[in-house]
Amino acid sequence: MSVITLVTDFGTGSPYVAAMKGVILSINPAATIVDITHEIPAQDVRRGAVVLEDVAEYFPADAIHVGVIDPGVGTQRAIVYARIGQQSYVAPDNGLLGRLVRRMRPSKIICLEDRQYWLEPVSDTFHGRDIMAPVAARLSLGLDPDRLGPPLEEIGQIDRPEIRVTPSRIEGVVLEADSFGNLRTNIPADLLASRPTDERMCVICSIYETWGIFRTYADQPHGTFIALVGSSNHLELAIVGDSAAGRLGIHVGEQVILAWE
Amino acid sequence: MSVITLVTDFGTGSPYVAAMKGVILSINPAATIVDITHEIPAQDVRRGAVVLEDVAEYFPADAIHVGVIDPGVGTQRAIVYARIGQQSYVAPDNGLLGRLVRRMRPSKIICLEDRQYWLEPVSDTFHGRDIMAPVAARLSLGLDPDRLGPPLEEIGQIDRPEIRVTPSRIEGVVLEADSFGNLRTNIPADLLASRPTDERMCVICSIYETWGIFRTYADQPHGTFIALVGSSNHLELAIVGDSAAGRLGIHVGEQVILAWE
Amino acid sequence: MSVITLVTDFGTGSPYVAAMKGVILSINPAATIVDITHEIPAQDVRRGAVVLEDVAEYFPADAIHVGVIDPGVGTQRAIVYARIGQQSYVAPDNGLLGRLVRRMRPSKIICLEDRQYWLEPVSDTFHGRDIMAPVAARLSLGLDPDRLGPPLEEIGQIDRPEIRVTPSRIEGVVLEADSFGNLRTNIPADLLASRPTDERMCVICSIYETWGIFRTYADQPHGTFIALVGSSNHLELAIVGDSAAGRLGIHVGEQVILAWE
Repeated sequence: MSVITLVTDFGTGSPYVAAMKGVILSINPAATIVDITHEIPAQDVRRGAVVLEDVAEYFPADAIHVGVIDPGVGTQRAIVYARIGQQSYVAPDNGLLGRLVRRMRPSKIICLEDRQYWLEPVSDTFHGRDIMAPVAARLSLGLDPDRLGPPLEEIGQIDRPEIRVTPSRIEGVVLEADSFGNLRTNIPADLLASRPTDERMCVICSIYETWGIFRTYADQPHGTFIALVGSSNHLELAIVGDSAAGRLGIHVGEQVILAWE
Repeated sequence: MSVITLVTDFGTGSPYVAAMKGVILSINPAATIVDITHEIPAQDVRRGAVVLEDVAEYFPADAIHVGVIDPGVGTQRAIVYARIGQQSYVAPDNGLLGRLVRRMRPSKIICLEDRQYWLEPVSDTFHGRDIMAPVAARLSLGLDPDRLGPPLEEIGQIDRPEIRVTPSRIEGVVLEADSFGNLRTNIPADLLASRPTDERMCVICSIYETWGIFRTYADQPHGTFIALVGSSNHLELAIVGDSAAGRLGIHVGEQVILAWE
Repeated sequence: MSVITLVTDFGTGSPYVAAMKGVILSINPAATIVDITHEIPAQDVRRGAVVLEDVAEYFPADAIHVGVIDPGVGTQRAIVYARIGQQSYVAPDNGLLGRLVRRMRPSKIICLEDRQYWLEPVSDTFHGRDIMAPVAARLSLGLDPDRLGPPLEEIGQIDRPEIRVTPSRIEGVVLEADSFGNLRTNIPADLLASRPTDERMCVICSIYETWGIFRTYADQPHGTFIALVGSSNHLELAIVGDSAAGRLGIHVGEQVILAWE
């Protein structure tokens, strides 16, 4: 129980991240702290939720994931502990865990209330350092989560873009652009399994279209706009050897249509 | 004694940082290395000093903080070991520790001179790798700092912007903008404790003003310019849900005035 | 055998990096993972090769370096294990190890083929996570590299800019700009050892020139264009207190001439 990960919108190199790590190591010097990312756009809870959904499962059982994208810090929003599958999460109850809990129901949700596990004095503007970091560190030492506060029945959800499926079409959206400019959609590969994905299938996004599904980023000539199944097992749009986000001006939220002739 | 932190102006992802980590782990494979930040603007000793003052205290007793913002590398400026409170520091004697030593007098200062603890050959341009990293690693293994060189009486200070206080006014400056664009001033919350901080108190910065002190970033409608006490226990200026630095064009060094009617 | 380093073009804060770390820690929870850099420009194998050559040697014997700059991911390019000196490397066979193997012949090269050491299912687009990370983690636990696949005789080279040497001239190129804008050339300091490097030696790059070799970045007045031997033991061009790359508009690949009167 000693891997603690951090997902924040503080920015890489933020001293806020360093303060959290200092607090964790002061309580559990043996903790292995891993930065998942601090590059979530400021206050973009939705993006944080996507990253946690994509990455958490690759960490060891009993990893503790701490998410600090917290525009409501200091207000009455709750901070929760959640046990989801074999891993634990500490985060504000603002939707940051919203995608994870849609995939799998938490086996336990606790509302953080018992201040004896927090760092005093608790500032009104940095609960990541003063509440979430010390709680995660104590959990990593074996603290029983039931001692953190009262149980909760539900955790806050977050609207997520729906997928529309008809016999001749699937409609989804671009959910994220990675650092290469590849565009990750919300259309899971499973949905394609029972359909032909050859040259009779057209993928349309903004004013661009491509036919069929390719297997790798290097299957076509440099500069070709292609669709493929990305490493998160969702449909992805890419330009071979270039940035689809940059070249085509396609942003998160843009509609993606798969149509069969 | 095994947490070693790094504060540099090398930039995140700089191979220089990696070389320092390699040197440390070659000497002490069990060291826990934490990046405080590598995003200090190039050669900005003053900013490095602020970050060290804000963050070091959250780390465990016996942490060793290594600061490499070192425009004078290779010249006659000294490199020092300093024991301040329960923690140790290795840094050029150029003011980088200047804010910390104003808060608390070092119990020991040593001038690094004994080359047997350095990495040979010592380059003229990268003492972080060749002197500071190996010395910090050896200290983390228990090396007596007295063996590093002769004691020093004083450590270099750095001018820091002063605060002017009168019965009806407090004048300070913006010291730093965080990644959200919140502006951290040099006015400590303590100074406000004995005064009313309600709507009779005006906070002025550049051409902007706000009245009173709010408690959290979310207390007011989106877009409101507010003052509050930040997590470093200093007065902070912010725009709810937005970047004060970006929107208002306020930079480090800008004057901040608190005036009472 | 427990330090694993990562060099990628994923970008700092990329969830892809986090997924690789999760995979490694799931297999070897005691691994010490160090980010060398994730800031290699997308698909720039050449730059990755320079960073590995400059930095790897500072890590402990038995460090395992994982390089994922892999534009051909999913195609027939091989992924290799290489033992070079006292350290191990896992990388696509696309030239990323090309500079290292020119300096020292690998004592062992293995082509990764045995899927039992990989993460199933193997995606077609992210072999860093599904092949290289799990293989590196298993090597760090003591797995015999001979079990990974068949031996190879040779590893792919990469063209590298040559140096031309005549009695009166040395010609090289700028190989990299660091975060300070200092320009690292491919001209090794050794080449200068037998020649005068005083004011009779002119260093020319683009339309700029300087005479002689200085020892530190601070030897001359602010703003002076100088040449010196950098911390990688190669000729470097710099502007005192400023960015040579930024001020002079000199890019990677620009020719550098040393001429003796």
